Amino acid sequence: MSDSQVMFSLGPDQLPTHWYNLVADLPTPPPPPLHPGTHEPVGPDDLAPLFPMELIRQEVSTERWIEIPEPVREVYAQYRPSPLYRARRWEQRLGTPARIYYKYEGVSPAGSHKVNTSIPQVYYNAVDGITRLTTETGAGQWGTALAYACALFGVECEVWQVGVSYDGKPQRRTLMEVFGGTVHRSPSRLTASGRAFPEGHPGSLGIAISEAVEVAAQDPEAKYALGSVLNHVLLHQTVIGQEAIRQLAIAGESGADVVIGCAGGGSNLAGLAFPFLGETLAGLQHPRIVAVEPASCPTLTRGEYRYDFGDTAGLTPLMKMYTLGHDFVPSPIHAGGLRYHGMAPLVSHAYAEGLLTAAALPQSECFETAVEFARTQGIVPAPESSHALAQVRREALAARDAGRETVIVVGLSGHGLLELGAYESFLADALSDDPLSDADLAAALAGVPVLSG
Amino acid sequence: MSDSQVMFSLGPDQLPTHWYNLVADLPTPPPPPLHPGTHEPVGPDDLAPLFPMELIRQEVSTERWIEIPEPVREVYAQYRPSPLYRARRWEQRLGTPARIYYKYEGVSPAGSHKVNTSIPQVYYNAVDGITRLTTETGAGQWGTALAYACALFGVECEVWQVGVSYDGKPQRRTLMEVFGGTVHRSPSRLTASGRAFPEGHPGSLGIAISEAVEVAAQDPEAKYALGSVLNHVLLHQTVIGQEAIRQLAIAGESGADVVIGCAGGGSNLAGLAFPFLGETLAGLQHPRIVAVEPASCPTLTRGEYRYDFGDTAGLTPLMKMYTLGHDFVPSPIHAGGLRYHGMAPLVSHAYAEGLLTAAALPQSECFETAVEFARTQGIVPAPESSHALAQVRREALAARDAGRETVIVVGLSGHGLLELGAYESFLADALSDDPLSDADLAAALAGVPVLSG
Repeated sequence: MSDSQVMFSLGPDQLPTHWYNLVADLPTPPPPPLHPGTHEPVGPDDLAPLFPMELIRQEVSTERWIEIPEPVREVYAQYRPSPLYRARRWEQRLGTPARIYYKYEGVSPAGSHKVNTSIPQVYYNAVDGITRLTTETGAGQWGTALAYACALFGVECEVWQVGVSYDGKPQRRTLMEVFGGTVHRSPSRLTASGRAFPEGHPGSLGIAISEAVEVAAQDPEAKYALGSVLNHVLLHQTVIGQEAIRQLAIAGESGADVVIGCAGGGSNLAGLAFPFLGETLAGLQHPRIVAVEPASCPTLTRGEYRYDFGDTAGLTPLMKMYTLGHDFVPSPIHAGGLRYHGMAPLVSHAYAEGLLTAAALPQSECFETAVEFARTQGIVPAPESSHALAQVRREALAARDAGRETVIVVGLSGHGLLELGAYESFLADALSDDPLSDADLAAALAGVPVLSG
Repeated sequence: MSDSQVMFSLGPDQLPTHWYNLVADLPTPPPPPLHPGTHEPVGPDDLAPLFPMELIRQEVSTERWIEIPEPVREVYAQYRPSPLYRARRWEQRLGTPARIYYKYEGVSPAGSHKVNTSIPQVYYNAVDGITRLTTETGAGQWGTALAYACALFGVECEVWQVGVSYDGKPQRRTLMEVFGGTVHRSPSRLTASGRAFPEGHPGSLGIAISEAVEVAAQDPEAKYALGSVLNHVLLHQTVIGQEAIRQLAIAGESGADVVIGCAGGGSNLAGLAFPFLGETLAGLQHPRIVAVEPASCPTLTRGEYRYDFGDTAGLTPLMKMYTLGHDFVPSPIHAGGLRYHGMAPLVSHAYAEGLLTAAALPQSECFETAVEFARTQGIVPAPESSHALAQVRREALAARDAGRETVIVVGLSGHGLLELGAYESFLADALSDDPLSDADLAAALAGVPVLSG
């Protein structure tokens, strides 16, 4: 079957033993996060109310490899190594000489890559005796992933779900409840951060983060868990890229020409791309890396690289990142997981250093690609992932026009089985593209604090 | 990791090359299907308007092994061999010495085992030049599986979806449409069989089958595809059991003590159990096989073994099977895939011969088990599959009470991500158990034709 092989699996003995920390290999160190009050670099003590010490250690670590604890590997082994697929039927449909490989994270218990970090985050909290975790969720994938991991380690899980998502996707809420989580609509009446907004407000990730952080900070038995953006979250996702590099070799490829991932907070992109970037920095291969974001929330392509808050209420440290402004409320496009005003500081730094590129795509093109992908590959992509696939399509068609064999690796971060309402809108021709206007962008950026650095 | 290994994978080179035909090994041949008009055994010509000749050949074959065509194996390789998991965390929760293995078919493109037969069915039709396939769907899993396979082979797909399912599960309809299928609510106004019922009637599988058969019989370019019940459908599913037997050996087990599957039309159960039954008939191992059905549709446990129609309008051949009567309209329990009045003739024959056992379980116990399973294993089971899991739970608790090591193998036929509405009802305590009353059973059986044989 080797000429037609489509699935490249690794055995359980090839599960990565360590996470890869890009910071160790970067030419310049990333700018530190700053205390929101003093504007001085934050220390471990500042973060201790929110995170267990091992995660804080990982957040600031400069070690290249950080060992994955055995209990975490045991849970990973439930669904990892995840498969790498060659998209032969899609290639044929596109008539391209490009070879397209997709790394599929939808096989995970929560249906997306988010579980890769929820498992270690809950594990480290449980080891520290924490009995309750709070978090926010946009599309619902992170909340699901955290609820699942909490069920495994016997930790209570409380989720603030962005209002529009809570109202429009009751299935997602039910899934979190099946896993034992408690779900609140954000903005809620339970927090000062939530009560600052009128009841029925559509909410945003920034608001939901403020609510979850506020609750965790007030309860000594509770901590907070974040699903993207921070260094330790990106770190945990690097199992994806490590596996993909090995699987590409099994598929007979000497390396990738292009590595593509969608980017909301940045952890999915980083998980796939950072191990490739590590190979670039070591001189082993030099793929072009493309972060794909929605035209309606174009953080890397149109945001500014400045210190800004991670949340709306200004409770988090200031992080230097590409941002649209922490007050930014993105248009309610269906890829909820990409509707974040900022970009992970580490991804932002790598972008500013020229180590990766970015593209912003309209959602109609993404859904059109997703349907084509489903009809050839049999997987309905998450709307987030469809952004990466649309970029793959552009690259594959360019390769066709140039008659060029190109090896494309794309992260298929999750399935879209809980997002079929969005597909229904697309099939009914009821989706609009809603690129961010210059005026809205300027207004959103006006709220960013002015800092040196 | 061997002491904690939970996932037992096979490489792509271990994909079965043949389907296993239990008929070759049965002590007595199963009774033949009869023509609905003449009551004589049906011949290939009687079936030719509905099925391509290769499927008819498989339907009546007595060969033990039937080769899987290479193009079918190529599509199988997209998701097969499917994983066998050891449910260690669930075992711990139950405190049982039983070792529980589940064979997970939810990794397939349509999320259930149904794809194992939709792919070859569409392939054989496409090879014969058929451009349009019609079918029915209850829970929606079969319609999804057929739509997916049709997309791959360029065949038009038209699905009659049982009314209650169409109304209550728009996501399922959307999924079929994403794969390119056309979906009608059944009973529809498009067929005489449908028009016999009032508009808005909740429908049944029997009615939807009549509609799909009627349309296919009238269009020379079209054929009909059935997702369960018939011999060739059961045959295609035997990849499941063949793989499971190999995976059990890899897990270090000499065989299974109990093999459990849910049974609606019978193909899921047969796919897992028939290869084990083949080993029993060859004297290699002797697992007890349990077919699990809902208490509200107890075909094997309370039906009669008689000739009956496969559909409501009486368009199909008469098949000797356990039946509740072809007019039976089961209570609208959530496991739509188990709401069929009959049971596959081959499963019925094996049951009548004492080769397998059956149990009927109430749905509340099934959902309770499913939630427990999700919280330990990270997979939300299809409501159909939850019936099998509830039986596993009973067996595992009995093993605990007896202090007995038991090897349990269960078919997890699909995931429940498109059935979260049912879980929502369960969590809200809004599900009732609705066992079939004796009076309703007697009334339903009164419509079965009286035949000798």
